[in-house]
Amino acid sequence: MARSGRRPGPSGTREAILRAARRAFHVHGYDGATIRGIAAAAGVDPALVHHFYGSKEQLFAAAMEVPFTPSEVIPALLEGGAAGLGERILRFFLAANDRPEAGPFVALIRSASSNERAAAMLRGFIVREVIGRLAGALGLPHAELRASLVGSQLAGLAMARYVLRVEPLASADPDTVVAWVAPTLQRYLTGELPRPAPGARTRRSGRTTGRRASRP
Amino acid sequence: MARSGRRPGPSGTREAILRAARRAFHVHGYDGATIRGIAAAAGVDPALVHHFYGSKEQLFAAAMEVPFTPSEVIPALLEGGAAGLGERILRFFLAANDRPEAGPFVALIRSASSNERAAAMLRGFIVREVIGRLAGALGLPHAELRASLVGSQLAGLAMARYVLRVEPLASADPDTVVAWVAPTLQRYLTGELPRPAPGARTRRSGRTTGRRASRP
Repeated sequence: MARSGRRPGPSGTREAILRAARRAFHVHGYDGATIRGIAAAAGVDPALVHHFYGSKEQLFAAAMEVPFTPSEVIPALLEGGAAGLGERILRFFLAANDRPEAGPFVALIRSASSNERAAAMLRGFIVREVIGRLAGALGLPHAELRASLVGSQLAGLAMARYVLRVEPLASADPDTVVAWVAPTLQRYLTGELPRPAPGARTRRSGRTTGRRASRP
Repeated sequence: MARSGRRPGPSGTREAILRAARRAFHVHGYDGATIRGIAAAAGVDPALVHHFYGSKEQLFAAAMEVPFTPSEVIPALLEGGAAGLGERILRFFLAANDRPEAGPFVALIRSASSNERAAAMLRGFIVREVIGRLAGALGLPHAELRASLVGSQLAGLAMARYVLRVEPLASADPDTVVAWVAPTLQRYLTGELPRPAPGARTRRSGRTTGRRASRP
Protein backbone atom coordinates (compact mmCIF):
# COMPACT_ATOMS: atom_id res chain seq x y z
CA MET A 1 0.00 0.00 0.00
CA ALA A 2 3.06 2.26 -0.09
CA ARG A 3 2.27 5.09 -2.41
CA SER A 4 4.98 7.71 -1.93
CA GLY A 5 8.71 7.97 -1.57
CA ARG A 6 8.35 8.61 2.15
CA ARG A 7 10.82 6.63 4.17
CA PRO A 8 8.94 3.88 6.06
CA GLY A 9 9.05 4.04 9.83
CA PRO A 10 10.84 1.40 11.87
CA SER A 11 9.21 -2.02 11.76
CA GLY A 12 7.73 -1.52 15.23
CA THR A 13 5.75 1.51 14.10
CA ARG A 14 3.11 -0.43 12.19
CA GLU A 15 2.60 -2.73 15.16
CA ALA A 16 2.29 0.27 17.51
CA ILE A 17 -0.35 1.79 15.23
CA LEU A 18 -2.33 -1.46 15.05
CA ARG A 19 -2.14 -1.85 18.83
CA ALA A 20 -3.37 1.71 19.34
CA ALA A 21 -6.11 1.13 16.77
CA ARG A 22 -7.38 -2.04 18.47
CA ARG A 23 -7.47 -0.23 21.79
CA ALA A 24 -9.24 2.82 20.33
CA PHE A 25 -11.87 0.76 18.51
CA HIS A 26 -12.58 -1.18 21.69
CA VAL A 27 -12.75 1.87 23.94
CA HIS A 28 -14.51 4.36 21.65
CA GLY A 29 -16.34 2.06 19.23
CA TYR A 30 -16.02 2.18 15.47
CA ASP A 31 -17.66 5.56 15.02
CA GLY A 32 -15.93 7.17 17.99
CA ALA A 33 -12.37 6.15 17.13
CA THR A 34 -10.39 8.61 15.01
CA ILE A 35 -7.21 8.33 12.97
CA ARG A 36 -5.95 11.43 14.80
CA GLY A 37 -6.51 9.86 18.22
CA ILE A 38 -4.95 6.57 17.18
CA ALA A 39 -1.91 8.37 15.79
CA ALA A 40 -1.49 10.31 19.03
CA ALA A 41 -1.71 7.12 21.10
CA ALA A 42 0.91 5.47 18.88
CA GLY A 43 3.15 8.55 19.04
CA VAL A 44 3.16 9.13 15.27
CA ASP A 45 1.86 11.73 12.84
CA PRO A 46 -1.69 11.13 11.53
CA ALA A 47 -0.29 11.38 8.00
CA LEU A 48 1.79 8.28 8.68
CA VAL A 49 -1.31 6.32 9.70
CA HIS A 50 -3.04 7.38 6.48
CA HIS A 51 0.11 6.53 4.55
CA PHE A 52 0.30 3.02 5.98
CA TYR A 53 -3.39 2.14 6.19
CA GLY A 54 -5.46 4.58 4.12
CA SER A 55 -8.95 5.05 5.57
CA LYS A 56 -10.35 4.26 9.02
CA GLU A 57 -12.17 1.32 7.43
CA GLN A 58 -8.89 -0.08 6.10
CA LEU A 59 -7.18 0.47 9.43
CA PHE A 60 -10.00 -1.41 11.18
CA ALA A 61 -9.67 -4.29 8.73
CA ALA A 62 -5.91 -4.48 9.29
CA ALA A 63 -6.17 -4.20 13.09
CA MET A 64 -8.95 -6.83 13.32
CA GLU A 65 -7.43 -9.06 10.63
CA VAL A 66 -10.47 -8.87 8.38
CA PRO A 67 -8.93 -9.86 5.04
CA PHE A 68 -11.01 -7.47 2.93
CA THR A 69 -12.76 -4.12 3.17
CA PRO A 70 -16.47 -3.65 2.45
CA SER A 71 -15.75 -0.57 0.32
CA GLU A 72 -13.86 -2.82 -2.13
CA VAL A 73 -15.97 -5.95 -1.90
CA ILE A 74 -19.53 -4.60 -1.94
CA PRO A 75 -19.27 -2.65 -5.20
CA ALA A 76 -17.72 -5.71 -6.86
CA LEU A 77 -20.58 -7.90 -5.63
CA LEU A 78 -23.15 -5.36 -6.80
CA GLU A 79 -21.66 -5.09 -10.28
CA GLY A 80 -23.82 -7.90 -11.66
CA GLY A 81 -27.00 -6.14 -10.58
CA ALA A 82 -29.71 -7.33 -8.25
CA ALA A 83 -30.26 -10.68 -9.97
CA GLY A 84 -28.11 -13.33 -8.36
CA LEU A 85 -26.80 -10.93 -5.72
CA GLY A 86 -27.70 -13.32 -2.88
CA GLU A 87 -25.66 -16.08 -4.49
CA ARG A 88 -22.66 -13.82 -5.14
CA ILE A 89 -22.65 -12.61 -1.53
CA LEU A 90 -22.90 -16.17 -0.23
CA ARG A 91 -20.13 -17.50 -2.49
CA PHE A 92 -17.84 -14.69 -1.36
CA PHE A 93 -18.69 -15.41 2.27
CA LEU A 94 -18.01 -19.15 1.92
CA ALA A 95 -14.74 -18.59 0.06
CA ALA A 96 -13.56 -16.22 2.79
CA ASN A 97 -14.41 -18.65 5.60
CA ASP A 98 -14.08 -22.20 4.20
CA ARG A 99 -10.52 -22.78 5.28
CA PRO A 100 -8.90 -25.06 7.82
CA GLU A 101 -8.07 -22.33 10.31
CA ALA A 102 -10.77 -20.09 11.72
CA GLY A 103 -11.90 -17.48 9.23
CA PRO A 104 -12.28 -13.79 9.97
CA PHE A 105 -16.02 -13.84 10.59
CA VAL A 106 -15.58 -16.56 13.17
CA ALA A 107 -12.98 -14.57 15.07
CA LEU A 108 -15.21 -11.48 15.01
CA ILE A 109 -18.24 -13.46 16.16
CA ARG A 110 -16.28 -15.07 18.98
CA SER A 111 -15.02 -11.71 20.12
CA ALA A 112 -18.38 -9.93 19.82
CA SER A 113 -20.18 -12.74 21.63
CA SER A 114 -17.90 -12.67 24.61
CA ASN A 115 -17.98 -9.00 25.51
CA GLU A 116 -20.24 -6.00 25.13
CA ARG A 117 -17.56 -3.59 23.94
CA ALA A 118 -16.45 -5.85 21.13
CA ALA A 119 -20.11 -6.25 20.15
CA ALA A 120 -20.59 -2.49 20.03
CA MET A 121 -17.43 -2.07 17.98
CA LEU A 122 -18.46 -4.71 15.47
CA ARG A 123 -21.98 -3.30 15.29
CA GLY A 124 -20.57 0.15 14.45
CA PHE A 125 -18.40 -1.26 11.68
CA ILE A 126 -21.19 -3.43 10.22
CA VAL A 127 -23.82 -0.69 10.34
CA ARG A 128 -21.56 1.97 8.85
CA GLU A 129 -19.50 0.07 6.32
CA VAL A 130 -21.56 -2.98 5.37
CA ILE A 131 -25.27 -2.35 5.92
CA GLY A 132 -25.04 1.32 5.06
CA ARG A 133 -23.24 0.68 1.77
CA LEU A 134 -25.41 -2.25 0.81
CA ALA A 135 -28.65 -0.48 1.71
CA GLY A 136 -27.66 2.62 -0.21
CA ALA A 137 -26.75 0.60 -3.29
CA LEU A 138 -29.94 -1.47 -3.21
CA GLY A 139 -32.16 1.59 -3.23
CA LEU A 140 -35.15 -0.50 -2.16
CA PRO A 141 -37.66 0.16 0.61
CA HIS A 142 -36.57 -1.21 4.00
CA ALA A 143 -33.02 -1.43 2.69
CA GLU A 144 -31.48 -1.41 6.16
CA LEU A 145 -33.79 -4.12 7.43
CA ARG A 146 -32.99 -6.14 4.30
CA ALA A 147 -29.28 -5.81 4.89
CA SER A 148 -29.58 -6.72 8.57
CA LEU A 149 -31.62 -9.83 7.67
CA VAL A 150 -28.91 -10.90 5.22
CA GLY A 151 -26.38 -10.36 7.98
CA SER A 152 -28.44 -12.47 10.39
CA GLN A 153 -28.48 -15.47 8.04
CA LEU A 154 -24.75 -15.15 7.33
CA ALA A 155 -23.88 -14.81 11.02
CA GLY A 156 -25.98 -17.88 11.82
CA LEU A 157 -24.41 -19.83 8.98
CA ALA A 158 -20.98 -18.97 10.36
CA MET A 159 -22.11 -20.08 13.81
CA ALA A 160 -23.53 -23.41 12.59
CA ARG A 161 -20.86 -24.24 10.00
CA TYR A 162 -17.67 -22.94 11.62
CA VAL A 163 -18.22 -22.48 15.37
CA LEU A 164 -20.64 -25.24 16.39
CA ARG A 165 -19.86 -27.34 13.29
CA VAL A 166 -23.30 -28.94 13.19
CA GLU A 167 -23.52 -31.66 10.54
CA PRO A 168 -24.43 -32.00 7.75
CA LEU A 169 -24.21 -28.24 7.31
CA ALA A 170 -20.60 -28.07 8.50
CA SER A 171 -19.25 -30.36 5.78
CA ALA A 172 -21.68 -29.62 2.96
CA ASP A 173 -19.86 -28.49 -0.18
CA PRO A 174 -20.26 -24.80 -1.13
CA ASP A 175 -22.58 -25.53 -4.08
CA THR A 176 -24.99 -27.33 -1.78
CA VAL A 177 -24.97 -24.50 0.75
CA VAL A 178 -25.56 -22.02 -2.06
CA ALA A 179 -28.49 -24.04 -3.39
CA TRP A 180 -30.14 -24.04 0.03
CA VAL A 181 -29.26 -20.63 1.44
CA ALA A 182 -28.84 -18.24 -1.52
CA PRO A 183 -32.63 -18.05 -2.13
CA THR A 184 -33.03 -16.87 1.47
CA LEU A 185 -30.53 -14.06 0.92
CA GLN A 186 -32.06 -13.14 -2.45
CA ARG A 187 -35.52 -12.87 -0.93
CA TYR A 188 -34.22 -10.67 1.89
CA LEU A 189 -32.43 -8.46 -0.66
CA THR A 190 -34.99 -8.06 -3.40
CA GLY A 191 -38.15 -9.98 -2.52
CA GLU A 192 -41.57 -8.55 -1.90
CA LEU A 193 -41.51 -8.12 1.84
CA PRO A 194 -44.25 -7.11 4.22
CA ARG A 195 -44.18 -3.70 5.79
CA PRO A 196 -44.22 -3.48 9.58
CA ALA A 197 -47.78 -3.22 10.84
CA PRO A 198 -48.62 0.45 11.54
CA GLY A 199 -48.38 1.19 15.23
CA ALA A 200 -46.89 -2.19 16.01
CA ARG A 201 -45.15 -2.06 19.35
CA THR A 202 -41.49 -2.89 19.46
CA ARG A 203 -39.96 -5.30 21.88
CA ARG A 204 -38.46 -2.34 23.74
CA SER A 205 -41.82 -0.82 24.51
CA GLY A 206 -42.38 -2.66 27.73
CA ARG A 207 -44.45 -5.60 26.66
CA THR A 208 -43.07 -8.73 28.23
CA THR A 209 -43.27 -11.61 25.80
CA GLY A 210 -40.79 -13.76 27.70
CA ARG A 211 -41.88 -17.12 28.97
CA ARG A 212 -40.32 -19.10 31.71
CA ALA A 213 -40.94 -22.70 32.52
CA SER A 214 -41.02 -23.43 36.19
CA ARG A 215 -37.81 -24.65 37.70
CA PRO A 216 -37.59 -27.86 39.63
CA MET B 1 -41.02 -32.46 40.23
CA ALA B 2 -41.17 -34.33 43.54
CA ARG B 3 -42.94 -37.58 42.87
CA SER B 4 -42.34 -39.78 45.91
CA GLY B 5 -42.32 -39.61 49.66
CA ARG B 6 -38.52 -39.64 49.64
CA ARG B 7 -37.09 -37.11 52.05
CA PRO B 8 -35.48 -34.30 50.02
CA GLY B 9 -31.75 -33.83 50.49
CA PRO B 10 -30.35 -30.73 52.13
CA SER B 11 -30.67 -27.54 50.09
CA GLY B 12 -27.02 -27.73 49.08
CA THR B 13 -27.53 -31.09 47.36
CA ARG B 14 -29.31 -29.69 44.33
CA GLU B 15 -26.58 -27.10 43.86
CA ALA B 16 -23.89 -29.78 44.17
CA ILE B 17 -25.65 -31.85 41.49
CA LEU B 18 -25.95 -28.85 39.14
CA ARG B 19 -22.28 -27.97 39.69
CA ALA B 20 -21.23 -31.53 38.94
CA ALA B 21 -23.50 -31.57 35.89
CA ARG B 22 -22.03 -28.37 34.45
CA ARG B 23 -18.53 -29.73 34.93
CA ALA B 24 -19.39 -33.11 33.41
CA PHE B 25 -21.10 -31.59 30.35
CA HIS B 26 -18.10 -29.34 29.76
CA VAL B 27 -15.52 -32.08 30.21
CA HIS B 28 -17.27 -35.02 28.52
CA GLY B 29 -19.70 -33.25 26.18
CA TYR B 30 -23.43 -33.81 26.10
CA ASP B 31 -23.29 -37.38 24.83
CA GLY B 32 -20.39 -38.41 27.05
CA ALA B 33 -21.78 -37.13 30.34
CA THR B 34 -23.84 -39.62 32.34
CA ILE B 35 -26.27 -39.28 35.22
CA ARG B 36 -24.26 -41.96 37.02
CA GLY B 37 -21.00 -40.05 36.67
CA ILE B 38 -22.61 -36.77 37.71
CA ALA B 39 -24.14 -38.42 40.77
CA ALA B 40 -20.76 -39.88 41.75
CA ALA B 41 -19.07 -36.48 41.39
CA ALA B 42 -21.77 -34.87 43.53
CA GLY B 43 -21.53 -37.66 46.13
CA VAL B 44 -25.18 -38.71 45.80
CA ASP B 45 -27.11 -41.72 44.55
CA PRO B 46 -28.04 -41.66 40.82
CA ALA B 47 -31.65 -42.22 41.83
CA LEU B 48 -31.60 -38.88 43.63
CA VAL B 49 -30.45 -37.11 40.44
CA HIS B 50 -33.30 -38.76 38.51
CA HIS B 51 -35.67 -37.87 41.33
CA PHE B 52 -34.70 -34.19 41.26
CA TYR B 53 -34.16 -33.67 37.53
CA GLY B 54 -35.66 -36.53 35.53
CA SER B 55 -33.73 -37.18 32.33
CA LYS B 56 -30.27 -36.11 31.23
CA GLU B 57 -31.94 -33.59 28.91
CA GLN B 58 -33.81 -32.04 31.83
CA LEU B 59 -30.66 -31.98 33.95
CA PHE B 60 -28.81 -30.19 31.14
CA ALA B 61 -31.61 -27.62 30.85
CA ALA B 62 -31.52 -26.98 34.60
CA ALA B 63 -27.72 -26.79 34.78
CA MET B 64 -27.45 -24.47 31.77
CA GLU B 65 -30.55 -22.45 32.71
CA VAL B 66 -32.36 -23.23 29.48
CA PRO B 67 -35.95 -22.49 30.50
CA PHE B 68 -37.51 -25.35 28.51
CA THR B 69 -36.67 -28.81 27.23
CA PRO B 70 -36.88 -29.77 23.55
CA SER B 71 -38.72 -32.99 24.40
CA GLU B 72 -41.61 -30.87 25.73
CA VAL B 73 -41.47 -27.99 23.28
CA ILE B 74 -40.93 -29.71 19.93
CA PRO B 75 -43.97 -32.01 20.09
CA ALA B 76 -46.13 -29.02 21.04
CA LEU B 77 -44.79 -27.03 18.10
CA LEU B 78 -45.36 -29.96 15.75
CA GLU B 79 -48.94 -30.49 16.87
CA GLY B 80 -50.37 -28.17 14.24
CA GLY B 81 -48.68 -30.13 11.46
CA ALA B 82 -46.18 -28.95 8.86
CA ALA B 83 -48.19 -25.94 7.71
CA GLY B 84 -47.17 -22.86 9.66
CA LEU B 85 -44.46 -24.75 11.56
CA GLY B 86 -41.82 -22.13 10.69
CA GLU B 87 -43.97 -19.40 12.18
CA ARG B 88 -44.73 -21.38 15.34
CA ILE B 89 -41.03 -22.11 15.90
CA LEU B 90 -40.12 -18.47 15.34
CA ARG B 91 -42.84 -17.14 17.67
CA PHE B 92 -41.69 -19.51 20.40
CA PHE B 93 -38.08 -18.43 19.86
CA LEU B 94 -38.94 -14.71 20.03
CA ALA B 95 -41.11 -15.14 23.11
CA ALA B 96 -38.29 -16.99 24.87
CA ASN B 97 -35.72 -14.33 24.03
CA ASP B 98 -37.54 -10.98 23.76
CA ARG B 99 -36.99 -9.89 27.31
CA PRO B 100 -34.95 -7.14 28.93
CA GLU B 101 -32.32 -9.44 30.39
CA ALA B 102 -30.32 -11.74 28.14
CA GLY B 103 -32.34 -14.77 27.07
CA PRO B 104 -31.14 -18.35 27.24
CA PHE B 105 -30.05 -18.63 23.60
CA VAL B 106 -27.89 -15.56 23.98
CA ALA B 107 -26.10 -16.99 27.01
CA LEU B 108 -25.53 -20.29 25.21
CA ILE B 109 -24.25 -18.54 22.09
CA ARG B 110 -21.89 -16.38 24.14
CA SER B 111 -20.55 -19.40 25.91
CA ALA B 112 -20.21 -21.56 22.79
CA SER B 113 -18.52 -18.76 20.87
CA SER B 114 -15.87 -18.21 23.45
CA ASN B 115 -14.57 -21.73 23.91
CA GLU B 116 -14.33 -24.97 22.02
CA ARG B 117 -15.55 -27.20 24.83
CA ALA B 118 -18.72 -25.20 25.33
CA ALA B 119 -19.27 -25.33 21.57
CA ALA B 120 -18.90 -29.12 21.55
CA MET B 121 -21.26 -29.44 24.50
CA LEU B 122 -23.92 -27.27 22.88
CA ARG B 123 -23.48 -29.07 19.55
CA GLY B 124 -24.10 -32.41 21.28
CA PHE B 125 -27.27 -31.14 22.94
CA ILE B 126 -28.60 -29.51 19.76
CA VAL B 127 -27.84 -32.47 17.53
CA ARG B 128 -29.29 -35.04 19.91
CA GLU B 129 -32.26 -33.26 21.43
CA VAL B 130 -33.28 -30.59 18.93
CA ILE B 131 -32.21 -31.55 15.42
CA GLY B 132 -32.66 -35.28 16.01
CA ARG B 133 -36.19 -34.86 17.34
CA LEU B 134 -37.23 -32.33 14.74
CA ALA B 135 -35.73 -34.32 11.86
CA GLY B 136 -37.40 -37.51 13.01
CA ALA B 137 -40.77 -35.81 13.32
CA LEU B 138 -40.52 -34.12 9.93
CA GLY B 139 -39.92 -37.40 8.12
CA LEU B 140 -38.73 -35.52 5.03
CA PRO B 141 -35.61 -36.12 2.95
CA HIS B 142 -32.57 -34.21 4.23
CA ALA B 143 -34.33 -33.75 7.55
CA GLU B 144 -31.09 -33.16 9.46
CA LEU B 145 -29.86 -30.59 6.98
CA ARG B 146 -33.28 -28.90 7.16
CA ALA B 147 -33.11 -28.73 10.93
CA SER B 148 -29.55 -27.40 10.91
CA LEU B 149 -30.54 -24.68 8.41
CA VAL B 150 -33.42 -23.65 10.68
CA GLY B 151 -30.93 -23.52 13.54
CA SER B 152 -28.55 -21.38 11.51
CA GLN B 153 -31.20 -18.73 10.83
CA LEU B 154 -32.32 -18.71 14.47
CA ALA B 155 -28.75 -18.46 15.78
CA GLY B 156 -28.06 -15.58 13.40
CA LEU B 157 -31.27 -13.85 14.39
CA ALA B 158 -30.23 -14.13 18.04
CA MET B 159 -26.82 -12.72 17.17
CA ALA B 160 -28.22 -9.76 15.20
CA ARG B 161 -31.20 -8.98 17.45
CA TYR B 162 -29.86 -9.70 20.93
CA VAL B 163 -26.04 -9.74 20.86
CA LEU B 164 -25.04 -7.14 18.24
CA ARG B 165 -28.43 -5.39 18.40
CA VAL B 166 -28.30 -4.22 14.80
CA GLU B 167 -31.19 -1.91 13.95
CA PRO B 168 -33.86 -2.01 12.69
CA LEU B 169 -33.90 -5.76 13.34
CA ALA B 170 -33.14 -5.37 17.04
CA SER B 171 -36.26 -3.31 17.80
CA ALA B 172 -38.66 -4.67 15.20
CA ASP B 173 -41.83 -6.00 16.80
CA PRO B 174 -42.31 -9.79 16.76
CA ASP B 175 -45.02 -9.70 14.07
CA THR B 176 -42.65 -7.91 11.71
CA VAL B 177 -39.84 -10.37 12.37
CA VAL B 178 -42.26 -13.23 11.79
CA ALA B 179 -43.43 -11.74 8.50
CA TRP B 180 -39.86 -11.48 7.24
CA VAL B 181 -38.19 -14.56 8.69
CA ALA B 182 -40.89 -17.24 9.08
CA PRO B 183 -41.01 -17.93 5.31
CA THR B 184 -37.28 -18.70 5.45
CA LEU B 185 -37.80 -21.25 8.21
CA GLN B 186 -40.83 -22.74 6.47
CA ARG B 187 -38.87 -23.22 3.24
CA TYR B 188 -36.01 -24.89 5.12
CA LEU B 189 -38.50 -27.17 6.88
CA THR B 190 -40.83 -28.22 4.11
CA GLY B 191 -39.80 -26.54 0.84
CA GLU B 192 -38.62 -28.29 -2.28
CA LEU B 193 -34.91 -28.23 -1.78
CA PRO B 194 -32.09 -29.24 -4.07
CA ARG B 195 -30.18 -32.41 -3.41
CA PRO B 196 -26.42 -32.17 -2.99
CA ALA B 197 -24.73 -32.75 -6.34
CA PRO B 198 -23.57 -36.38 -6.56
CA GLY B 199 -19.89 -36.66 -5.80
CA ALA B 200 -19.65 -33.05 -4.74
CA ARG B 201 -16.57 -32.57 -2.65
CA THR B 202 -17.00 -31.30 0.85
CA ARG B 203 -15.01 -28.46 2.30
CA ARG B 204 -13.13 -31.00 4.40
CA SER B 205 -11.82 -32.86 1.38
CA GLY B 206 -8.75 -30.77 0.92
CA ARG B 207 -9.87 -28.25 -1.65
CA THR B 208 -8.82 -24.81 -0.51
CA THR B 209 -11.54 -22.35 -1.28
CA GLY B 210 -10.19 -19.70 1.08
CA ARG B 211 -9.20 -16.37 -0.31
CA ARG B 212 -6.88 -13.89 1.23
CA ALA B 213 -6.45 -10.33 0.26
CA SER B 214 -2.90 -9.13 0.50
CA ARG B 215 -1.96 -7.45 3.71
CA PRO B 216 -0.53 -3.95 3.78
